[in-house]
Amino acid sequence: MTMYDIIRKKRDGMELKKEEIEFVVRGYTKGEIPDYQMAAFLMAVYFRGMSERETYDLTIAMLESGEQLDLSSLKGVKLDKHSSGGVGDKISFVVLPIVASFGVKIAKMSGRGLGHTGGTIDKLESIPGMKTTLKKEEFLKIVDEVGFSIVSQTENLAPADKKIYALRDATATVENLSLIASSIVSKKLAAGADAILFDVKVGRGAFMKDLEQAKKLAYLMIDIIKRRGKRAKAVISNMDQPLGRMVGNSLEVIEAVECLRGNGPTDVMQLSYVLSKEMLDLAGIQVAEEDIERMVHSGKPLTLFKRFIEHQGGDPQIVDDPNKLPVSKNILDVRSECAGYIAKVDAEAIGRACVMLGGGRTRKEDDIDHSVGIELVKKISEWVDAGEVIARLYYSSRSDLTAALELVKSAYEFSEQPLKIPPVVLEVIE
Amino acid sequence: MTMYDIIRKKRDGMELKKEEIEFVVRGYTKGEIPDYQMAAFLMAVYFRGMSERETYDLTIAMLESGEQLDLSSLKGVKLDKHSSGGVGDKISFVVLPIVASFGVKIAKMSGRGLGHTGGTIDKLESIPGMKTTLKKEEFLKIVDEVGFSIVSQTENLAPADKKIYALRDATATVENLSLIASSIVSKKLAAGADAILFDVKVGRGAFMKDLEQAKKLAYLMIDIIKRRGKRAKAVISNMDQPLGRMVGNSLEVIEAVECLRGNGPTDVMQLSYVLSKEMLDLAGIQVAEEDIERMVHSGKPLTLFKRFIEHQGGDPQIVDDPNKLPVSKNILDVRSECAGYIAKVDAEAIGRACVMLGGGRTRKEDDIDHSVGIELVKKISEWVDAGEVIARLYYSSRSDLTAALELVKSAYEFSEQPLKIPPVVLEVIE
Repeated sequence: MTMYDIIRKKRDGMELKKEEIEFVVRGYTKGEIPDYQMAAFLMAVYFRGMSERETYDLTIAMLESGEQLDLSSLKGVKLDKHSSGGVGDKISFVVLPIVASFGVKIAKMSGRGLGHTGGTIDKLESIPGMKTTLKKEEFLKIVDEVGFSIVSQTENLAPADKKIYALRDATATVENLSLIASSIVSKKLAAGADAILFDVKVGRGAFMKDLEQAKKLAYLMIDIIKRRGKRAKAVISNMDQPLGRMVGNSLEVIEAVECLRGNGPTDVMQLSYVLSKEMLDLAGIQVAEEDIERMVHSGKPLTLFKRFIEHQGGDPQIVDDPNKLPVSKNILDVRSECAGYIAKVDAEAIGRACVMLGGGRTRKEDDIDHSVGIELVKKISEWVDAGEVIARLYYSSRSDLTAALELVKSAYEFSEQPLKIPPVVLEVIE
Repeated sequence: MTMYDIIRKKRDGMELKKEEIEFVVRGYTKGEIPDYQMAAFLMAVYFRGMSERETYDLTIAMLESGEQLDLSSLKGVKLDKHSSGGVGDKISFVVLPIVASFGVKIAKMSGRGLGHTGGTIDKLESIPGMKTTLKKEEFLKIVDEVGFSIVSQTENLAPADKKIYALRDATATVENLSLIASSIVSKKLAAGADAILFDVKVGRGAFMKDLEQAKKLAYLMIDIIKRRGKRAKAVISNMDQPLGRMVGNSLEVIEAVECLRGNGPTDVMQLSYVLSKEMLDLAGIQVAEEDIERMVHSGKPLTLFKRFIEHQGGDPQIVDDPNKLPVSKNILDVRSECAGYIAKVDAEAIGRACVMLGGGRTRKEDDIDHSVGIELVKKISEWVDAGEVIARLYYSSRSDLTAALELVKSAYEFSEQPLKIPPVVLEVIE
């Protein structure tokens, strides 16, 4: 077996055997297969694709390249959730406390933001004192006591994926469903849950630009999890405009707290309810959306969120006093130049504008400013008069304010005709 | 302009601009673009192909990466010939002296053998004393005085191609017509001729396995040469079975001398005459095949061949006394196990058997044994009785004789029905 023959076989459209896929992943991770052969292989996979069986074998080979978390010490069904990334996505902070309130455990590992999409860990770190790197025992203890915990993904989780992803990123071989699915699922499987809910975003601000591709990715990820003998479902959700009205790290924590009080923006509330319902379903608990609404209004999820912050060293007072969060006092109003109904708020542009303000990263090494961000005062279907405020920029001395302002302005489009509010949940797949 | 964007553009099937192709070739040759990005790019080219314009720009960028030979000091039309490589291809030793006999100059740079195909330079070096590396002035002086010369390709000729070819070889991206054409033509253009004749081999022992592909390659190479304002033609010739009866370095020199006496095997004579006629046509000289035959029988081409050997330090007596060439005295007869008409003599298998005997290379660094080889006593359409000799192996102490014997036996197939002799020249393209 040689890497040359395997590249050739994939190039010629043949299906690779399990042993061949293992040879590639192990050889590359160990440094025995050079980057250039792996790059040619990945481009061949880009063009030829992989069967579901090959995708499964690739996922498992990457999973087995590193540590796998053992959650067996926790009682009951252990759930996990994955979002394919978007702008304004603070959903985990709402859904995890809700699901935990029903007695289900969630041990979640999350990533940081890169490019126009934000990262859950960055958002958490806007809470003063919050620790996102914990020892395994500590992590599991919090899950056991609070019902959920969120920590930063460790380096030892699917290291093969880490190395392969960096190469894909430099060789324009990211956009292939099998490579995307195996990358996501290998890390999720390594995190040890029994059942996983995928929130696959689709639209301008998402990785997947059209519904068909998003559905294919969802089916592929579910297929891998099922082949592994675990349970999974996927919710396809809209990411044409950002989720909610707040984009930026501490601003999103504030909005998540509003949601846990039952007062969040409609789209965030709707998506949180559907995701909570489906996660509970994966745990064998059938509830109606009204049951979830009732649970939110009981205050239990908010209490768990406070307890979670406290257990991870953060200041739980931020829940009752948002002034304890770092939010910039420098605010620039963005005003509409015309009157009309808002027809578009380009999520990718808003995400990129947030990066320009200092709230995100263009390179992994970049530092971020938790205090900056964008408030979307107006969203799709809402009426504005000329000169009315459509958005607010929270900026700091390091913000590229001019560029961000231009980008936010260009993200908005207007219509003379009234428009419907776009649905946030597009499809549920199992 | 970034390499990432160029990979992505080609991956998405878009045509690259001249500046983008130059950026890739220059950047890679200078080491500014890493191997892994180039490998991904080459695989994208493998799948998406290149337009004729892109192929031309790639060729010129590779040509301009190195030295270009100036043949302007030589009078008249300067010709060159390129063979896409095969088994038993000693044609240059026959055609160059013939064409030079008509007063046309040929300054030819050749390569060494690799894999199952032999190399002109290796064959020349079986002549005792023969130098294949000459200073430029010496090389041109011999072309001027003898009419032709053959030397080893210098390192400075299209160094970009050298580096790119090595990467293609390791990443299964060799088999793409634009990459093949640009690799061949960049080196041929660097060698400075006014007009080039391509001998494109097709069949079992050739790089091109089917006629359609061979014709496409021929048209593409001719297109590049014409865009450069030079002249070119191509002959598509059969390489299902080896050319002639001798395969192996010194054995092929002996057979070439027989051809120059007018006594060579029919297929070698036929192909030599057609190639000579087309080369002369490129030089503006129209002759009939009978004129060429008459020229061979005049003895002038043989005299030029002797003079060429002498000028390059070789022993010209090998022409009259083949015993002066290193030919192994260890001969193993291969006998037919059945009676019948020969239906197939697999050229690739014969070429690989020659490598096993020590007459070729599997890696560039390998040393070769000029004395070994294979004599094909029987070829397609000829009758054999059971037990009759079909081939002879010339072996030495380093030969893997058992494996070579098996391979030669397996190269032969038999038929009860009489068969036609396959045509050697399939098509002439201009």
